[in-house]
Amino acid sequence: MESLDYKQSGVDYAKIDPLKVLAQRAAADTARNLAQHGFREVAASRGESAYVVDCGDFYLASITECLGTKALVADAMRALPGNSDGRTYYDQIAQDTLAMAINDIITVGATPISVHAYWAAGGSDWFADEARARDLVEGWKRACDLCGVSWGGGETPALAGVVEPGRIDLAASCVGIVRPKSRLTLGEKLAAGDAIVLLESSGIHANGISLARKLAERLPDGYATRLDNGTLFGDALLAPTLLYSPVTEALAATGIVPHYCVNITGHGWRKLMRHSVAFTYRINALPTAPPVLQFIQRHAALDDREAYGTLNMGAGFALFVAAADAERTVQIARSAGASALIAGRVEAGSKRIVIEPLQLTFSGDDLHVRA
Amino acid sequence: MESLDYKQSGVDYAKIDPLKVLAQRAAADTARNLAQHGFREVAASRGESAYVVDCGDFYLASITECLGTKALVADAMRALPGNSDGRTYYDQIAQDTLAMAINDIITVGATPISVHAYWAAGGSDWFADEARARDLVEGWKRACDLCGVSWGGGETPALAGVVEPGRIDLAASCVGIVRPKSRLTLGEKLAAGDAIVLLESSGIHANGISLARKLAERLPDGYATRLDNGTLFGDALLAPTLLYSPVTEALAATGIVPHYCVNITGHGWRKLMRHSVAFTYRINALPTAPPVLQFIQRHAALDDREAYGTLNMGAGFALFVAAADAERTVQIARSAGASALIAGRVEAGSKRIVIEPLQLTFSGDDLHVRA
Repeated sequence: MESLDYKQSGVDYAKIDPLKVLAQRAAADTARNLAQHGFREVAASRGESAYVVDCGDFYLASITECLGTKALVADAMRALPGNSDGRTYYDQIAQDTLAMAINDIITVGATPISVHAYWAAGGSDWFADEARARDLVEGWKRACDLCGVSWGGGETPALAGVVEPGRIDLAASCVGIVRPKSRLTLGEKLAAGDAIVLLESSGIHANGISLARKLAERLPDGYATRLDNGTLFGDALLAPTLLYSPVTEALAATGIVPHYCVNITGHGWRKLMRHSVAFTYRINALPTAPPVLQFIQRHAALDDREAYGTLNMGAGFALFVAAADAERTVQIARSAGASALIAGRVEAGSKRIVIEPLQLTFSGDDLHVRA
Repeated sequence: MESLDYKQSGVDYAKIDPLKVLAQRAAADTARNLAQHGFREVAASRGESAYVVDCGDFYLASITECLGTKALVADAMRALPGNSDGRTYYDQIAQDTLAMAINDIITVGATPISVHAYWAAGGSDWFADEARARDLVEGWKRACDLCGVSWGGGETPALAGVVEPGRIDLAASCVGIVRPKSRLTLGEKLAAGDAIVLLESSGIHANGISLARKLAERLPDGYATRLDNGTLFGDALLAPTLLYSPVTEALAATGIVPHYCVNITGHGWRKLMRHSVAFTYRINALPTAPPVLQFIQRHAALDDREAYGTLNMGAGFALFVAAADAERTVQIARSAGASALIAGRVEAGSKRIVIEPLQLTFSGDDLHVRA
């Protein structure tokens, strides 16, 4: 079978990137507006996963994040003839959406404080489906409680003509506070010798979904195809994204300040090279890839370069910590409910990631996430 | 011609409201999560236009707002044969989107600090249209500069299968700070005797667009129909929403703290009754309705009740101030570039708005925007 790459699966970053560059430059130029309010931005946060403003006694972090197309998988699974108990999966989709914002804002050292929901449907009818609406609300609330954030409000527009009929565009915005200010983690302390601790993922999370959807179209039984462990492919895809803020808050409570954090989303393991300074990231231990990702790799005929360059392959979040803190970081993460392992170390050297168990290297040229 | 009401135009609030009530209850229950961070919410902000958290020295306000379907009007105008200079209108659409968030967050007394853009397109191709992309970026930046906010970042996902091909779902989130805390305006000081100062609108702004689009379908020349003043209907619709934060900041600078503020969006003038306490709002002077709203009222055959109950009819924002501050409020607004007038006063009495020049009364039952 011909292999599926991400461009084939429908997202062409070459078409989006010029606008992103324009927008990033224009946005950077607006930073001067803060002076009139007595604030200043933390310029190093531009290009990172959340925007940070220095408010004197603390830093204010903010973010808006999109779910992407994972809700389409929920819609397809709900419509399967075998879904006799009428599961909507939107409780899980709610957690995915919130995780996109929470797992990003915590990378800068922020405690998430409040969130807003953005639920834009293709028409008023979307909201009239009681079971689905209840699941979406309950899942969202449960995720808020898990992360200790207050759900401040949101928007529930009906956008016929903009959003497809029967579909919903889901996003979340989040505000956080970095306090004490020493918790700020924009990578200035990242150094050779640091340990790379990986927090394990629950599955595909919410990135690589276009690829998974394309694969489902190719499989004779689609989402109803069974993995080796008996789980339906669609069910496995819908395992909700893990929320990592309990881990970062537990670390802060014990005084461990990571030198850098990366939320592993699009671009898979290449994201480990996100920081602007050149380092070599040497990996010598791998988490076990969740069965659903092994399934995708096999059936989409992805080699390791494609799989680890696109999917999280078992690593949902990376903490770069002082080597002396590594063991304790793993223990604290486990106490907070997350599986974790010391996967490697940061070394002086050219910007690249060397995944030794796979004899695989990505160079800095393989990742372009900054303007 | 049969009159067009808002439900006919495609948005059925009866289908959305049950979910909103569920969500509002669940959201309110998450407020307790703030205690673990040493914060507490300002409960009175729930049901108001922005969410407010007490952070000790200041209040933190946040919001996420959707543009709605106004971009569809821009798309239609751009495609008109008469658009020989290839205007995209997305510079104006950008201002509309930002205004939805800015004009809401300032109602609680917040200074807008930073914004995030949410631009979710129906596919990567949307972003490859250079003229449109440049207009969207430039208009967004100009609006940020006008409001003195820093553009912190945003999302530009390509969501084929969720967003319609060739379309874009636009939203904005905003974070603001209420400082000094005495600037908080949630209506506790609203009292009989207060003056109602209305800031004039530029046109339809971004509410009532579904109705306007339905009307365009009915007109033989659609958006190319000329108003009495010669302007094309579509061009007039696309006058960008005014940004009112320069007014609220100028008022704060001179020490005037409004007792309450209302951003007049959906539900038109009925929004003036937004505050939870019962008052009678007596209007004795009207702003001139912009030509495009007069045109809609006439051609959609709306009586005054329908027109003022749905559209802004010339009033974009309402400031409720102490009677002694009314004249000065108007002068300061004008100095900040906004037309303004003292339109009426707040009186003790049942919840209703009496628009005397039109012999029109809306009762409290005519507005349901709270759970």
